[in-house]
Formats: sequence, C-alpha cells, structure tokens
Amino acid sequence: MTDPQTIHEYATRAAEAARVFATWTGVQRRDLLHCCADTLAAAEDRIVAVAAAETGLTVARLAGELARTTGQLRLLGDFVAAGRHRENLVSPGAAPNGTDVVAVPVPMGPVAVFAASNFPLAFGVVGGDTASALAAGCPVVVKAHPAQPRTSRLLAELLAAPLDVAPPGTFALVEGGPEVSLALVTSPPIRAVGFTGSLRGGRALMDAAAGRPDPIPVYAEMGSLNPVLVLPAAADHGQWAAALAAAVTASVGQLCTKPGLVLVPANPAGTALAAALAAAVVAAPTHPMLTGDMAADHAGWLDRAADLPGVTVTSAPPPDAAGPEHARMPRPFVVEVTPDELSGELLEEHFGPAVVVCPAPVEAYPRLVAGLAGSLTATLIVDDNDPSDRDLAVALLPALAERAGRIVVNGVPTGVAVCDAMHHGGPWPATSAPWSTSVGTAAVRRFLRPVALQGVPADLAATVFPS
Amino acid sequence: MTDPQTIHEYATRAAEAARVFATWTGVQRRDLLHCCADTLAAAEDRIVAVAAAETGLTVARLAGELARTTGQLRLLGDFVAAGRHRENLVSPGAAPNGTDVVAVPVPMGPVAVFAASNFPLAFGVVGGDTASALAAGCPVVVKAHPAQPRTSRLLAELLAAPLDVAPPGTFALVEGGPEVSLALVTSPPIRAVGFTGSLRGGRALMDAAAGRPDPIPVYAEMGSLNPVLVLPAAADHGQWAAALAAAVTASVGQLCTKPGLVLVPANPAGTALAAALAAAVVAAPTHPMLTGDMAADHAGWLDRAADLPGVTVTSAPPPDAAGPEHARMPRPFVVEVTPDELSGELLEEHFGPAVVVCPAPVEAYPRLVAGLAGSLTATLIVDDNDPSDRDLAVALLPALAERAGRIVVNGVPTGVAVCDAMHHGGPWPATSAPWSTSVGTAAVRRFLRPVALQGVPADLAATVFPS
Repeated sequence: MTDPQTIHEYATRAAEAARVFATWTGVQRRDLLHCCADTLAAAEDRIVAVAAAETGLTVARLAGELARTTGQLRLLGDFVAAGRHRENLVSPGAAPNGTDVVAVPVPMGPVAVFAASNFPLAFGVVGGDTASALAAGCPVVVKAHPAQPRTSRLLAELLAAPLDVAPPGTFALVEGGPEVSLALVTSPPIRAVGFTGSLRGGRALMDAAAGRPDPIPVYAEMGSLNPVLVLPAAADHGQWAAALAAAVTASVGQLCTKPGLVLVPANPAGTALAAALAAAVVAAPTHPMLTGDMAADHAGWLDRAADLPGVTVTSAPPPDAAGPEHARMPRPFVVEVTPDELSGELLEEHFGPAVVVCPAPVEAYPRLVAGLAGSLTATLIVDDNDPSDRDLAVALLPALAERAGRIVVNGVPTGVAVCDAMHHGGPWPATSAPWSTSVGTAAVRRFLRPVALQGVPADLAATVFPS
Repeated sequence: MTDPQTIHEYATRAAEAARVFATWTGVQRRDLLHCCADTLAAAEDRIVAVAAAETGLTVARLAGELARTTGQLRLLGDFVAAGRHRENLVSPGAAPNGTDVVAVPVPMGPVAVFAASNFPLAFGVVGGDTASALAAGCPVVVKAHPAQPRTSRLLAELLAAPLDVAPPGTFALVEGGPEVSLALVTSPPIRAVGFTGSLRGGRALMDAAAGRPDPIPVYAEMGSLNPVLVLPAAADHGQWAAALAAAVTASVGQLCTKPGLVLVPANPAGTALAAALAAAVVAAPTHPMLTGDMAADHAGWLDRAADLPGVTVTSAPPPDAAGPEHARMPRPFVVEVTPDELSGELLEEHFGPAVVVCPAPVEAYPRLVAGLAGSLTATLIVDDNDPSDRDLAVALLPALAERAGRIVVNGVPTGVAVCDAMHHGGPWPATSAPWSTSVGTAAVRRFLRPVALQGVPADLAATVFPS
C-alpha cells in the first residue's frame, strides 16, 4: 500500500511536471505516446502472460486488448500532433479595444487515474484515461486495481524507459484500497479524476472530490444496463440470438457494454428468440471471473433472481472445474421475467454471463423504457424494411437517446470502437459527467480547459502556448 | 415565494416540454430566440426604467446591457441555426460490424437557472444562461434574484408572448430564498444548473447537486480577483491609471471581471501609477449599489482593510447623498499593501469600487502570482517593445494561464466580448467547471451531451435527431 506521504509527494511532483509538460508541443506528446505503445507492443508476450495468470481472461482476449491499448496511445498521440484538440477559435477584433480574442486549450494539471479491473490493459494503468490525460499534456498518478498488482507493476516498469524523456513526475503508480483512493482524490495538486468501475466506487470518489475545499471534476464510468429492444418484424430473423448471446457471454460478461436486458415481443417469434438466446447463453464457454468477489456476486445474483416474483431462470450446471480457479468459474444463466415484474435489481448492472429477458407486448415497450435509468448504450433490433418496425423505432429512439450515450441499431453494444465519433458515456448512473466520453479521441477534451487570449501578441502566444 | 409543490410542477412540465423541444430544429430555436430578443428590444424603455429603479444601475448602463441581452439571444440562435453546435463527427465504418458511428448532440433536459443580481438583464431571467439553455434545446426553470422581483417578473411577462409557440413548460419563473434554490436544484427532473453569483451561493448549489441520488452538473460562475500585473517598462506609460480606475469603478465595482488586485513595480514609475490610480478611483462618480447588503459588505471591507498590517487606505469622503439610497451609496477606496502582507482577504473578491494595489519588486511577481487562486481573468500590462518586459511576460504567462480563464494583454478585463472565442470561466473558485464558459457561443455546449449513433440508418437519424 502506498502511504499518504508518498501519494502527496507524487501529486506534488506531478504538479511540477505539469508546468514543464504544458510547454510540450502536440508532436512531442505524440512521440512520447508512440514510444510507450512501441514499448508495450514489444513486451506483448510478457504482458499477456502476466495478465492472463492474474485475471483469468483468455490470451486471445488479452492480445486483442493490448493491440487496442497501443492503438489508442497512438491514435490519441496523432490527434494532438495534428492539433485536432485545438479548436483554433479566433474572434477577430472582438475585444472592447478591438484586439482579437483567441481560444487555446491548456492542460488541466495532474490527473488521478483509477485502473479498471475488467480491462486490465485498455483501461489499466496505461489505458484510455492515462493515454488521454498524457495526450492532453497532463501528468498522471494512477492507482493500480488491487486485484491486478503484478500486471499494473509490469506496465509501470515497462513505461519507465519511454517516460524517461518526460518531465520527472509525469507518471507515478500507487497501490492500495479505498483509503488510498480517497487520499489521491483529495490531494491538493490533483486537478481531475478518471475512473472506470463500480457505481459505489465511482460515487465515493465523486463525493470526495465534491467535498474538497476546491472541488475538481470526476470522470467516472460506472454501471450500465445496456438494454436491447427487439422489434416484432426483426424478431423473425433468428440470427440475433447468437449475436446477443455472444455479447452477453464475451469475457464472461465482464464488459461495461454487456447487454443486461433484452426486450422481445410477446409473440411466437419473440418466444423462439428468447429460447434460442437462453440456450446459447447457458451453452457458452466460460473461464474464471476477474476476482473471487465478482464470482461470488454473480452466484449470489443467480440465487436471488430465482426467488424473484414473475421470474424463470435457465442456468448452466455448476462447473466441474477443480482447483483454486473453481471458485471464480461462473455459471451462465438467463432470467426471464414478465413485464409487470421488471423492476428493482432486474434493472441494475450485474457483471457475469447472465442476462434478463422480458417478453412483452410492443405496446408496453415505451412504458418499460421509461422505467430505465441511464446507460452507456441502448440497442434496437429492427427490420428496416418493415413499416411497422420503423414507426416503432421512430417512436422509441428519442426515449432511448434520453437514457443512453450510444444508440446501436442492428448490432450489439459490445466492441466499443476507438474513433472520433465514439461516445462512451451516458446519463447517470452510467457516468458522472454525461457530456464526457472515456473512449475515442474526444476523451482528450476531458483534461483540457480553454483559455481566451485577448490582445496577446501572436508571437508571445506562440511562445507560451505551443501548438 | 414559490412553494415546493409548484417548483416540482414546473420541473415536471419542463421535462415534458423537453421531449418536444428536443425535436425542434436549430432554425426553429433561432426563430424563437430572435422573437424573444425582438420583444425585449421593443420594451426597452419599460425594462430599463423598472430595472433602474430596482437596481440603482444607470440608465446608460442598463440600455447597453439590454442590447447585450438581445444580442446574445440572437447570436446563440444563429449559432444553432447554422448547426455550429453540431460537431458532425462521423467515423465511417468504425463499428465492429462495419457501420458508421456518428456523434450528434442532444439537449441535457430541463435546466435550473439562477439569475445574477449584478447583470439584471444580461444574466437575469432571460440572460446568458437562459439563452444558452434554450439555444441547446433545454427548457428552463429560472429563479429570480430576490433583490429584483419587479425586473424579473416584467421580463418573464414579456417572454410569455414569444414563448407561446414553444412547448408548454419551456420557461417558468420561480421566486424565493435559499430554500427555493435548494428545492429547485434537487428537483428530480432538473438535469443541469446555471448560476452566476457568490462563492457561498454557488457552493451551496454544488453541494446540493452533488448530494442528489443522481448528481447533476452545476455551471457556477463565482468569485474572481482578476489580478492585473503592470510590468516595469509599461509602468512608464501613465494612461493605464485612468483605464484601470475606470474598470475598478464601472457599475460601482459590481462586475465579475473587476480588477481586484494591481501589482505595480516598486520604482518611481510604479509609485506614480499607483498614486494616479488611487486618485482616479476615489474621484470616480458613484451610484447606489445593488442591495443594502452589498453596500454594507463594501463598507465593512473598508473598515477591516484599514486595520490590516502593512496597509494604507485612500478613500473618498462619505457620500453626502440623503434619503433611502444613501445607505446603498459606496465610498470608493484604494488599499495599498506591501508584498509581504498580501494575503488572506486582500486576495479575495470584493464587490464595490475598491482595489488592492501592491507595489513590489518585479522579482517578487512570480511568488505573488503563485499565491493567487483561480480567476476569470488575469491581465498583463507590458511594453511589447521592451525586451525585459517581454521576457517577464513569457515567464509570467504560464503561471497566469494556470490560474485564469482569460488572459488580457494591454487592456482591461471588464467588457466581456460575447463571441465564439470568449472563455468566461476559470479554475476554482472562479467557476465550478473550469472547462465551461457562461459567455459566448461555447456556453451552449454546457447543456448538450453527445450521443453516438452506430448503424442508425441516415433517414431514421434525420427523423429523430433533426439538425
């Protein structure tokens, strides 16, 4: 565990580093991020082996995740090198004395990053939050996820070489539990927080940040139900059962965008889709969950769900794996519930290979959507060529957009594309800041603030605020 | 006072209005805002007369402020009609299944706006926050400033006609004290808050919003010292004394960007500048302050400042005005303090025609700047042609940018231009959200959040998310 004095020293050094790092050009920051990516890519076998042993995730998944990790370091570096984070807004002669007003983005200062357990690489200590903070010109003090000390330390050790050229204090790793988290968020030099994790954890950080003498922004990506609505004409197309089951069970249901609720029409096609989805989910291959606590939560949810009114549970038999991993091996299951009983815990995020399916008359869809909280995503499976499906889509989309940061039509919400237009965010409780995204190039903006330069001679501005 | 039940009804109706208002195009919203502006412009004489009687501000100032108010309604309307709030970000084929990802901005939902007393029109009930929320497509429930009930009601009454075409519930006025403020901010349908006022008031709203079951963003513009640094070669140019005195005493020092601290070089030119500034401030014409409380605060600050160590106070004689306005008439004053004693209350915002002047060796400037909290603005008076001044500017600008949302060179911070590049914000305690601005077209973005559309057919997207 990192002691409070060390946390304070890291944050103080980060503030000193911030002043130098802020003078770096976008090209310099790109070169740094590319160098970090190259270093991680060269150590792929070692990283994947350590992470696989620690997390239970498959080698294939972790290799793909490392590629995403290095890809986003490079993408965000390219973004700032091209000056795409600069709006370059000029209002010629707008000041009262006739001088120009020019908006330039400046880094917010030291950022506290909390590594997520479910993406040990892409949202780990050198993941999206760290990459976007560094791209913005902000030093980071990152807290390892307590379940992944070896992976976190390895990544931090590997970064030492490429970060050697950065101002001392630009990157530091801390370890510990909630007390370390709170010490980091309340450390005076910290200017912003990036977090991916549970609603409870994110809320604790938000409360701590809001209680500072000088409150700071918290960008927390938390719980998300990710509802999927299957419309009647589309329900006839059986292929969605397999696609949805794959999304539910990928990484044994430990993705933030895992579909947690599927509404199917209460008709023969919907019934068939629900049956095929349930069969595919319970037949899906499994592997150990990230932690014993998560596996226990999943098993507890299975026990509780079976006792809920209006609910039928279809589950896989208990795993016959032996040894220490047995306790982390989840049983996939599907909860089927009547529309009238769809409430409470059935509408909350649960990690693990499980999904709630609700067959309902389509007339009830709007009422059911109105009962949903904010999510990262909302998905509509619709037959484009069917006028009735299309009318339903037009009627439902505004309510879904009110409750989600991303709308998927005829696809699955898992597999978040790292691109310019991605919005990985959404209304509470999906995130703490619904305007912000933690994936894609727009994630860099979270750690920048504009400064308006009024009457500042261009050569002076260029010297002090390099592009 | 508006009772809690009515506040809840207004917020609920605003949420219903939000669903309809979100379907309006930018052109429709522009037409609405222009129509509001036309209505206010046509009632100029009445508005100015009522506001002048209630606030003590001059007719000339209020006429100018009404022009700014109508101007920003039109400007923000034009901004959204031109689609400039839409980033139109498209990532072709970026989704895992090869479909496009397109980011569209959607309105956040009902916004609670708190009218400021110091800009009864431009930041009143139809001021910048209301205009930017409406431009974004968000209904508003606005709380009148308790000191300005007549002005607030008149503005709301005038808006009734142009707002008649908007969805019912798009605009509502509430009145009352802190308990009404808290009821409004904690009302479930409210999705965001816009506030301009005191640090104490803003913090109370932030705490209430952060304590909700579903925390919501608060955009609060609060206290700002607005430091001015005069560099040695520029101190020779005597014209700055008059310009700075005018900025200190404009609207009897009740502007958020009033210079509250002026550092002058401890040399003959600096001494002469300080003397000329003091003479001009105490000789400036005055008029009643906005409220009796503000006038009492100003008088109390004069009394306390005179007792501080290292301080010399130059003040105007007590006003000889008689009648009820006498108690609101401020005495302009200037506090001169040694660098070693520049701390505590001398570094806090005080409304009223007063300024702290600190003659200091330029070598001490960086240390003095390091002791400053966040401000809306920081100003540098510099002789561009003097190499030594220029070197000092290069050395000081990064530390000023760390502490301010706008840097002014060779100008005064008052007179905030309403334009694209304006940033009227800044680090704590200047605002609650340093990335946000309450003035200029970027103010609209505070009330929008992106939604990523993945695989949504273009015709469906155009139907549901009009441009």
